[in-house]
Amino acid sequence: MNSDRIILGIDPGTQVMGFGLIADKGKKIELITLDVFKFSSKEDQALRLKKIFESVLGLIDHYHPDELAIEAPFFGKNVQSMLKLGRAQGVAMAAGLYRNVPIFEYSPRKIKQSITGNGNASKEQVAGMLSNLLKMSEVPRLMDATDAVAVAICHYFQREPGTSGKNYSGWKSFLDQNPERQAKK
Amino acid sequence: MNSDRIILGIDPGTQVMGFGLIADKGKKIELITLDVFKFSSKEDQALRLKKIFESVLGLIDHYHPDELAIEAPFFGKNVQSMLKLGRAQGVAMAAGLYRNVPIFEYSPRKIKQSITGNGNASKEQVAGMLSNLLKMSEVPRLMDATDAVAVAICHYFQREPGTSGKNYSGWKSFLDQNPERQAKK
Repeated sequence: MNSDRIILGIDPGTQVMGFGLIADKGKKIELITLDVFKFSSKEDQALRLKKIFESVLGLIDHYHPDELAIEAPFFGKNVQSMLKLGRAQGVAMAAGLYRNVPIFEYSPRKIKQSITGNGNASKEQVAGMLSNLLKMSEVPRLMDATDAVAVAICHYFQREPGTSGKNYSGWKSFLDQNPERQAKK
Repeated sequence: MNSDRIILGIDPGTQVMGFGLIADKGKKIELITLDVFKFSSKEDQALRLKKIFESVLGLIDHYHPDELAIEAPFFGKNVQSMLKLGRAQGVAMAAGLYRNVPIFEYSPRKIKQSITGNGNASKEQVAGMLSNLLKMSEVPRLMDATDAVAVAICHYFQREPGTSGKNYSGWKSFLDQNPERQAKK
């Protein structure tokens, strides 16, 4: 029986959804798995949303994460793309909400800042730090999956909610006040 | 046992979610119920999304609608509000997707067009037509709820998918090809 805190990182998109699972081993972290779900652009949007929902629900039911960390850009090209992105985020979040897994969201900038110390770090710099942190000689070349691992690790670094709470979605305070709503371990 | 087709109309928003249920009685329609869920702006967004998801799931499990019609504006003020709206839509849709209830979305313009014959009709004109259609002396003054009834009735009017299929989300064709995925009646 594993009592490590498990963090599921999700990078939701309408074409590709990356995910990464890490175990919080106190002073270090271990990568459990990372991968992407790809959705055909030929599939209609409702079907893709359904797949996102079912994929996240499947991950939760298989790995029983204690917390869900989600990469959430707050700005985008245009209102159309933001509506689509919002829907993808919404269904991914719904899976967590449905299973009472607390959700924390982080902007891409905050994730880069947490991992490299620089909010404007390049993808390569983030990947380099990830391979250090995870003791991997090479981070797999699945950028959406590594983004998802990055958001999970970003969440791992937020140990002191009081000092870095800006990106907490408020679930923390909600759960503090409603401990019975906490996800079942 | 009631074998009418039941349509659940949803007008999702981050502050208020309207819903309306109608029964398709062939040549006429009957209102089953309409109401709104209100979310406190003091609640954080994740909690509100959770309530939207649970509310829609609750409606589905209680009324067993055959189809879900959703009012989906495609344009908004800014990317921030569209992201929030997308999330609200996404969690509402996730509830339908999870229960395998086919989802159909309609723009506000299409809804007004369907109900009054004029895509630019006023709220009052729509409300007037609704009270006619539903044989109610007065439509309740819950605009978000009447908007939800309006989208349900708009969907009722789309009897011939081939002739007005633009607003179908594609579930119809998906279900035609995958009849086993059809919502259980």
